Formats: sequence, C-alpha cells, structure tokens
Amino acid sequence: MSGSDRGENSGALDYRSAGVDIEAADDAKGRLQRLVESTRTAGMRGAFGGFGGMFRMPAGLTSPLLVASADGVGTKIKVAIEAERHDTVGHDLVNHCTNDILVQGARPLFFLDYVAFGKLEPAVVEGVVSGVAAGCRENACALIGGETAEMPGLYTPPDYDLAGFIVGCVEEARVLGSERVRSGDVLVGLASSGLHTNGYSLARRIVAERLRLGPHDRFPGEDGSVADVLLRVHQSYLAALTPVLDGADDHVHAMAHITGGGIPGNLNRALPDSVDAVVETSTWEVPNAFRVLERAGAVPRDEMFRAFNMGVGMIVVTSASGADAVVANAAAAGVNAWRLGRVQPGSGRVTLS
Amino acid sequence: MSGSDRGENSGALDYRSAGVDIEAADDAKGRLQRLVESTRTAGMRGAFGGFGGMFRMPAGLTSPLLVASADGVGTKIKVAIEAERHDTVGHDLVNHCTNDILVQGARPLFFLDYVAFGKLEPAVVEGVVSGVAAGCRENACALIGGETAEMPGLYTPPDYDLAGFIVGCVEEARVLGSERVRSGDVLVGLASSGLHTNGYSLARRIVAERLRLGPHDRFPGEDGSVADVLLRVHQSYLAALTPVLDGADDHVHAMAHITGGGIPGNLNRALPDSVDAVVETSTWEVPNAFRVLERAGAVPRDEMFRAFNMGVGMIVVTSASGADAVVANAAAAGVNAWRLGRVQPGSGRVTLS
Repeated sequence: MSGSDRGENSGALDYRSAGVDIEAADDAKGRLQRLVESTRTAGMRGAFGGFGGMFRMPAGLTSPLLVASADGVGTKIKVAIEAERHDTVGHDLVNHCTNDILVQGARPLFFLDYVAFGKLEPAVVEGVVSGVAAGCRENACALIGGETAEMPGLYTPPDYDLAGFIVGCVEEARVLGSERVRSGDVLVGLASSGLHTNGYSLARRIVAERLRLGPHDRFPGEDGSVADVLLRVHQSYLAALTPVLDGADDHVHAMAHITGGGIPGNLNRALPDSVDAVVETSTWEVPNAFRVLERAGAVPRDEMFRAFNMGVGMIVVTSASGADAVVANAAAAGVNAWRLGRVQPGSGRVTLS
Repeated sequence: MSGSDRGENSGALDYRSAGVDIEAADDAKGRLQRLVESTRTAGMRGAFGGFGGMFRMPAGLTSPLLVASADGVGTKIKVAIEAERHDTVGHDLVNHCTNDILVQGARPLFFLDYVAFGKLEPAVVEGVVSGVAAGCRENACALIGGETAEMPGLYTPPDYDLAGFIVGCVEEARVLGSERVRSGDVLVGLASSGLHTNGYSLARRIVAERLRLGPHDRFPGEDGSVADVLLRVHQSYLAALTPVLDGADDHVHAMAHITGGGIPGNLNRALPDSVDAVVETSTWEVPNAFRVLERAGAVPRDEMFRAFNMGVGMIVVTSASGADAVVANAAAAGVNAWRLGRVQPGSGRVTLS
C-alpha cells in the first residue's frame, strides 16, 4: 500500500501510511552528504553513513580534556519557520555551542546535529543542515554525524526542532574558570550580533502582539525586515579570542557566554565566592532592536537584562594588563570589544551599575 | 508583572508571561544535579552547571579514535507521554546510542541530552533524566551535560522531545567495519528486548486504530499492558559483547545495529561490495508483539522486516571460528544469541531466506 491510504482506516498498513516516508529520508540523506563533506577537517575519519562518526584525537597535547555541550536555538526556530528561512538557525547553533566550550578554553573538534520534523521535507532538511555546515566551516569543526527524524503527531508541519552537540578539547593546565578570577581583574565585553539565541519567546510575542508586525515587515529603526533582524546569526567568538587564548601568558581567566539569564544569570558562573563583578552599563549603547522591544513591550529594565544579551554576547574576565590585548584582537577579527566593568572583593554577585 | 497576565494583551510583558518559566527551570536543574552525580566515572571533570561538560581522555591508548552518535527515540516518546511513564525513554536513548558506537568497536565515555518541552514540568524533566542517568550507569558512561529547553508554541503540552549524544573511543587498529568482512563469515543474531526505538509510528497506529487499545489495556498475548510492551527498554549489547571485543583475537569483523530500516536496511551497512549476507529467518521465532502487529495491521512481511527489528537487535559478523564465543558470551550476559545466517560471495546485498 502506498501513502495514499493515509487516514483511511482499513486495508494493509505500512510505514508510509503511518506518516513516515523512508524515500524522503533517503533523498534528504543524499543532499546532506555533500554538506557534510564540506566540513571535513584533518581529524575526520571514516565515510558518511556509518553508525557512529569517527574523529582522531589531535596529537601533541600533554593532558587533553574533552569539553562538550548540547544546545538548541530555542524559539528562534519559530521565527525561521514562519519566515521560511531555514538556512541560518544551524549556523546559530554551531556558533552558540562553540562559544559555550570556548568559555572553558576549548577549541571545537566536531559537531553532530538532531533535526526532528512532523513531516520530512528534504529541501528544508537541506536548508537546515546547510546552516549547520556553514557554522562548522566557520569554526573549523567537522560535522561527523547527525540524526534526521520524522515524528508525525509530535511536530505539526511545517514545525521542526533542531539540537546540536559539540565536542572540543583543551590542555588541562589551560582550562579557564572562576578559580582563576581575582579582585582587580577587568571585564571586557564583546558585542553581540543581535538577540543571538535567547529571549525569542518574549521577542516574538512583542513583535506579533504589540508591534503587530509579520516576518517580512520592516523592523522599526532598522534597514531590514523583522526576519532579517531576528534571524541575525549568533556571533562566534572563536576567531576573536583564539589569539589571546593561544598566547603564552595566561591573561584570560574566565569567560561568560551571555545566553538565557542574560548578563546577571551568566557572569555569576565565572565568579568565585570571594569577588563581585560590577558591570557599568554606561560603557555601551544598547542596540536599537533591544530598545524597540523594551519600549513596545513596556518590559522592565531588569527583565530586559535577564531575557536578552542587550548587546553583549561574551564577557571576558582578564588580568588588568591583558585587557588591551583582548580588545585589540577582537577588533582585528571584526568584533567590537570594550572594558565594561571590573572585579572587586565581594561574595560572587553581579551588579549592573 | 507575574505569569498571571499570560494571554492578556496589555501591560508590561516579561519572560514568564511569554510562556517561559525561569523558576521552573531552576527547580528542574536542582533535581538533575543528583542524577548527574550518580553517573560519575573516572574521566568526569568539573562541577555540575559549567558551560561545557569536561572529560579526561582515557590513558593508555596508542591511537585513540573518538566515535560519536546523535539520536532520538522517535515516536516511542509519544507512547511514554500518553502512558505518563517518563522514566524509561532516556534509558532507551542511552542504550541505543551505546549500540551505535559499539558497532565500530567503541566503548562509551560520556553522554549529553537535549529535552525540549512546550511547558517545563520539573517532575517530568526529572523522570526523563532519571532514565538517561539509569542508561548512563548501565553503560558506565558519564552524563556530563545537557539542555532543558522550554519552547512554547513548538511543543503542545504535555508533549516533549528528547535527543541524546554519545562519545566513545576505540583504538584505531581495532575499529570494526565492512572492510574486515569476508565470505565464510557467520552472522550471529542477538535478541532484541522489544521494538527498541523503531517502528513506533506504525505500531501506535495499529494499536490505536486496529486493536483499539489504550496504553493501560492488556496487550494481546502478553502479561503486560500496551505501555508495558511498547515501552520495554531498548537492549544495550555492551555487556554481551565487551568480552569478545576485549579478547586478543579479532574474531568479530563488523556489526549491524538493527534500527530504522530493519535487518535489510542495516545489515547492508556492514557488508563490502564483494559479499552477500543470507539471513535464515527460520532460525528464530518472531516474538509475539511483532506477530500481533503484523496480523492486526495486515502488514506485508517485507514491510514488517523494514519497519521493525522482528526480534533481532544486533547482528554480529564474525569469523566462523569466533561464532561460538559470541553466542556464549552473550548468553553469559543474559542475552539470547544464535547463528542466524552466513556471508557468501556476492554484491553487497542482504537476502532473507
């Protein structure tokens, strides 16, 4: 029996009639192979289509630690689905995951994705994975595997979800973290490229209900559409920070990737109990998109700083003597950076002043 | 403003009113820490709650390859949701991923999960992750990270999805695969524990529409309910196969984990172009659950073998002289195994006879 009997309640049943299309899955698989090959790095082993992806550990590390992170893009995926622009969320995801392990000083080795659909559309799968592959190429990260699932009844077409997993490595002696941070350290902020992947449930509601704008309407105060602004790709800070992390002196002590919870909910994770971080909000101008959302939603300032990155995608905690190098290297990679605060004696709290 | 203004179209908006509950997320996080700690292995580094999970590479390998796999549990998740039994699908997922990398000879190092909800229910998150942790403990695999996402508008409560990601390692010289397989090799089948994680879209439809049974009704010919039978945990073959894989002689040449596509769609991945695999279906009795589904759905036999594992969860391709050891070691681990076919000159095809 073919898929044409779907919904009919008699006769023989097969997999397709239950909403799973194995031919569509095979078609999608063919489209993906080329994308996967585009991300090949020296460590990648084995051919496309194995049960597990294989990767050779880089040589030359004395005591390598693997650092891994799993993430999704939250309801930014709904913006992509509504705008029918499927090729950027994968890039967001890889950059997000790259930043998460960079915080511990790790550099990416490989990535795997999980994409789940209510009804598998090969062209959409290809679009999503092309974004993943673009992110992998940007971050020199091999896409060594993934899963494309068709789950009728769980996702309502055209909805889908996307999750990703990154593995990187770092020399154990160079792991960054709160235990390196001390009073007198400087906070350097690195500019975000937009909302990154946080705050979308709130942002989408404000745009739809208060601004009453669709994805193709112009976003207030911007050249682009709502989709253009909300789908700006999450900035990867790998290129901006690699030079200082590779340097011989350990100026960089810790970092905070500003994701869900904003500056107060993430910078605290980079602090020992003996210090506070003071963030001077006067050191940068909150970008237009956040100001528009704040005004249209009448969102309290505190809540804005919890839900959104407010223009700061990464905060580097560095020795005072290392701050200039962090700023200069970021600028050389095209990322605006500035001194946005300081570390002082305290009890592990983050203050916005 | 509190969550009570959800749906109201005026006043100030905050994150909770947009359907995201950060306190529920914090509550869930607290519940998870204990579960994560229960999976601790020697390689685990760093504390719960870091940006990325850390793991020390095992020492003593000459040329270690990392082997990774990403997967979900398909629409088995819908059975769990409908039966309100949330603590088994995570175990399925870890066992599934373990088998996927075992096929290449790799043993698990660590695992990360992704759980996405429409509305985050801390008790359900805890149930799901308790299953993941049980699977991690069974397979000596550290749960070093994960993401719990609340995505209003994408998942309809009480629906959720679950994906997982495993990393293992293998000595490069001991990687298994089709290039080791030769004519004269023997196929050993290892019994599945149930449907594992494939064929659920078809199975659920047959159960609901043809058998007209709910999750708590008795499954025909079984002692347990529909939920009991359909939620049986995916068998891990790690304990059954570790002794032969650790042995000095390389009797095991390749394996096929029988997942989506069944025996014909997976055993072919373990074959070089120069041989065929002949599976003798008379060597085992297809378990009751599959026969019930076949009859009730009037599903053609070929389609049954594509959609379901039909009682065979793993096929080991071994030298003829190694087959007895595979069978005996599996039996010692409580897994029924038997010679189910042979490898002969051919062109990479799988034949069911």
